[in-house]
Amino acid sequence: MDVHFHDTTAMARFAAEKMAKVNLFESPRLFCDLYCLEPGQTQKDHVHADNDKIYHVLSGACTVRIGDQRRRLTTGHTAVAPAGIVHGLDNDTDARTTLLVVMAPHPSP
Amino acid sequence: MDVHFHDTTAMARFAAEKMAKVNLFESPRLFCDLYCLEPGQTQKDHVHADNDKIYHVLSGACTVRIGDQRRRLTTGHTAVAPAGIVHGLDNDTDARTTLLVVMAPHPSP
Repeated sequence: MDVHFHDTTAMARFAAEKMAKVNLFESPRLFCDLYCLEPGQTQKDHVHADNDKIYHVLSGACTVRIGDQRRRLTTGHTAVAPAGIVHGLDNDTDARTTLLVVMAPHPSP
Repeated sequence: MDVHFHDTTAMARFAAEKMAKVNLFESPRLFCDLYCLEPGQTQKDHVHADNDKIYHVLSGACTVRIGDQRRRLTTGHTAVAPAGIVHGLDNDTDARTTLLVVMAPHPSP
């Protein structure tokens, strides 16, 4: 739409090799990405020492891991990975899934 | 659901007097809120000198102002208000609207 407004759902782009990320905005303070996962694609467990991350499921479903918890999330659900907590996700479904993801501060400003 | 996972859609709470905010998570790095607006409710134009804000429409529609631009956003649309840019929103529709809102860093840590 333009630099300030995004038809986010329409921006989904998928890649056969791995989860695709579409950036909506970034600054030293945060990034906002659309994550797009084909069935079977994952974001491996990892941790950011000094950054919080928000995952919000826009379409489909996936399993999100935060610390020692795992949860199947569907459209309209949100997961929070605070700084220092290991997190990752799996699209362990038969359909594509998309998530709006915000991390603050930006991990590589 | 618990501290890391939220059925965000189900957390909507509305108030007759003004736009309601439901907090999902906050830290010095960011806050993540659900904003809930009855028809006619608004968030007045304001500016944060050092904080970026993301608005994502979860249900309904509203008009978002960013700088000198105004746009009608509906479910699945995202608006970005970078630090230093005036912004606000109006639920100028006949239905309730909800938005996921992230600001970084937290304006009052």
